[in-house]
Amino acid sequence: MTDPHELTRMLQKDNGSKIVLLVGDGLGGLPLEPGGKTELETANTPNLDALARRGTLGLSTPMLPGIAPGSGPGHLGLFGYDPIKYRIGRGVLEALGIDFELGPNDVAIRGNFCTLDAAGNITDRRAGRIPTEVGSKLSEKLNQIKVPGAEVFVRAGEGYRTVLIFRGEGLGGDVADTDPQKTGVPPLEPVARSAGSAKTAQVAAEFLKQARVVLKDDAPANFLTLRGIDTMPQIPRFEEVYGMKAGAIAVYPMYRGLARLVGMDILDAGHTLDDQLTRLEKSWNDYDFFFIHWKYTDSSGEDGNFALKVQRTEELDTAIPRIAKLNPDVIVVTGDHSTPSKMKSHSWHPVPVLLSAENCRFDGSTKFGETQCRHGGLGQFEAKHLMLLAMAHAGRLEKYGA
Amino acid sequence: MTDPHELTRMLQKDNGSKIVLLVGDGLGGLPLEPGGKTELETANTPNLDALARRGTLGLSTPMLPGIAPGSGPGHLGLFGYDPIKYRIGRGVLEALGIDFELGPNDVAIRGNFCTLDAAGNITDRRAGRIPTEVGSKLSEKLNQIKVPGAEVFVRAGEGYRTVLIFRGEGLGGDVADTDPQKTGVPPLEPVARSAGSAKTAQVAAEFLKQARVVLKDDAPANFLTLRGIDTMPQIPRFEEVYGMKAGAIAVYPMYRGLARLVGMDILDAGHTLDDQLTRLEKSWNDYDFFFIHWKYTDSSGEDGNFALKVQRTEELDTAIPRIAKLNPDVIVVTGDHSTPSKMKSHSWHPVPVLLSAENCRFDGSTKFGETQCRHGGLGQFEAKHLMLLAMAHAGRLEKYGA
Repeated sequence: MTDPHELTRMLQKDNGSKIVLLVGDGLGGLPLEPGGKTELETANTPNLDALARRGTLGLSTPMLPGIAPGSGPGHLGLFGYDPIKYRIGRGVLEALGIDFELGPNDVAIRGNFCTLDAAGNITDRRAGRIPTEVGSKLSEKLNQIKVPGAEVFVRAGEGYRTVLIFRGEGLGGDVADTDPQKTGVPPLEPVARSAGSAKTAQVAAEFLKQARVVLKDDAPANFLTLRGIDTMPQIPRFEEVYGMKAGAIAVYPMYRGLARLVGMDILDAGHTLDDQLTRLEKSWNDYDFFFIHWKYTDSSGEDGNFALKVQRTEELDTAIPRIAKLNPDVIVVTGDHSTPSKMKSHSWHPVPVLLSAENCRFDGSTKFGETQCRHGGLGQFEAKHLMLLAMAHAGRLEKYGA
Repeated sequence: MTDPHELTRMLQKDNGSKIVLLVGDGLGGLPLEPGGKTELETANTPNLDALARRGTLGLSTPMLPGIAPGSGPGHLGLFGYDPIKYRIGRGVLEALGIDFELGPNDVAIRGNFCTLDAAGNITDRRAGRIPTEVGSKLSEKLNQIKVPGAEVFVRAGEGYRTVLIFRGEGLGGDVADTDPQKTGVPPLEPVARSAGSAKTAQVAAEFLKQARVVLKDDAPANFLTLRGIDTMPQIPRFEEVYGMKAGAIAVYPMYRGLARLVGMDILDAGHTLDDQLTRLEKSWNDYDFFFIHWKYTDSSGEDGNFALKVQRTEELDTAIPRIAKLNPDVIVVTGDHSTPSKMKSHSWHPVPVLLSAENCRFDGSTKFGETQCRHGGLGQFEAKHLMLLAMAHAGRLEKYGA
């Protein structure tokens, strides 16, 4: 299989055009009944529909048919990175999710506070689900630990979760979880699965030794297990592979983190869609490519709230006029995956795509929704090829071969 | 990724059936306005439409979504060769384009006549755009040069362009261009980028040394630079991979060259479509597979002439009755890429495909055009798989496995 980046490196050209990628997280949905409409089809979206009439629709498959992606692989695909080739460890995703700026010498780890009995066996793998405030205080205590050979950062997560970063030279990410996945047994020792991670296992063992002392009086959270130990994946930079300077306007830390992972600049904004669009307008001249992330189509879907997802989609629709007024050469509106409120979860269903540009092969679309996307001019394609389509329509790709 | 040729080698069978591949170069197009028709949809094509009713339609992606191919990769794809795996260097394409029969010991090079000042610096990279007649005379002079270790052929190109072939044992194609891509500096020396091309660099250096003397009084064309130095790609022969004897009926040298590259016989014909069809009829019993190339749907598109592209498409339509009268088992009508007159260039848009054969899954098509192709029975597929479909419909592929 050809790596699209081989082609974009070879064929990219800078014609000064601008692309806006507007992501409604979990945009795709399902009708509640046979013959019914999806959330997107139910929503009143006059601006998206007008864009569809001037554009072309399609459906993207995030990875492979039947595979529902998490937010990480979903967004990597949209950014044109093969989500199977570039795997993001759980620890790294957690660190991105608390806005921690990971560097190349960092190992990121998800920690779970747990309860040990007097014999050192785990009695509760989630430490009685302590509240976030308690976990935060314990994380601050753990953050004081010093170990030889690495800097240690411990940051609070939600509830019993915490995030650890070891920073230092020669720290590999290939260390097994210490969570035994059951109670009545002691936590596992950190074991390196390859030679390059021996030092990480040593650092982790020393950290855990001290943590046992630091937390000894904090039952039910008197210890922690380590999971998803990983380094940053080696991901080529967006600007290098596409020749475009990219800015990300995302409210939630994880999406800022994913954008940062591929080398986008993070453009801070307030928490409303209006704030995000104001930031877009302000930064318009400084970037070639903008990624705008709208979370609430996903969270309403995850809550199983069909009517709220419809409403959140209608809010997304109101963003279009302000974006269109900036006159981008290409506007893409899509999702990173589907989140049908009927399923209350991410799903594998192909994701609606709307692409509007001067040289679209117009396909007679009149309404942005799953049904028309199925018959759209872009057909059904792998999400990782969306960037190729966006660049082509922006005139940013030379012809291949003579 | 599976190489389709692994399968065709294994499954091919000769049942005496015949396939005609009629290529309208750059056939795919765009409507000028939302809701409008493409060139192909605007054209009055009663014969193609009748064929569509008896056949099935689809859209092919020449390489990947968003990638616009040149004629070389576009045709390789139609012939079932992965255009990313088999790359054709610029020099090779130029040699094909002047009908030069390249052999396995040849290195092909594009030369550009240029102007040097007294200090040996380039003042004009295109030698004042000398007319073809002048370039031809200079190419004849250069063709007299003898160098040790290789035979040298120099052939005129258009204007300031020329084509060089070095023929000899042990000549690699991995030598850097000598065109510095700017003026005010001397041309670069030919430098081998890998050990296997050291001899080519030596031959090129000796050739250029003599060329400097030969051309010294021919300002503004008093020297030349070398570009796109390359050998023929190692391409398996059409007959070996498909078990079919193939004849190519193409007017333009480049397309004859591309057909020759994969091992088709070149069937000479006059310059009109009628001449081409007469040749087809005459050679009907001698081949299993015919490639007929029609250039003018592309050139009218490149000129941005929508009406002329419509007319050229209508001319192509008139070829169908004479082809159908020969009763081929499979007729395929398609393009090597799209050339929308709106864009005046090759584009990435998927290419209309019409396949007519006894065992088509008829899809209710009534008109050969992009809109019906989008809903056609062949779906949207990679161009390199078209040969598999043609062979299957011709009954030339055994079942895979038991």
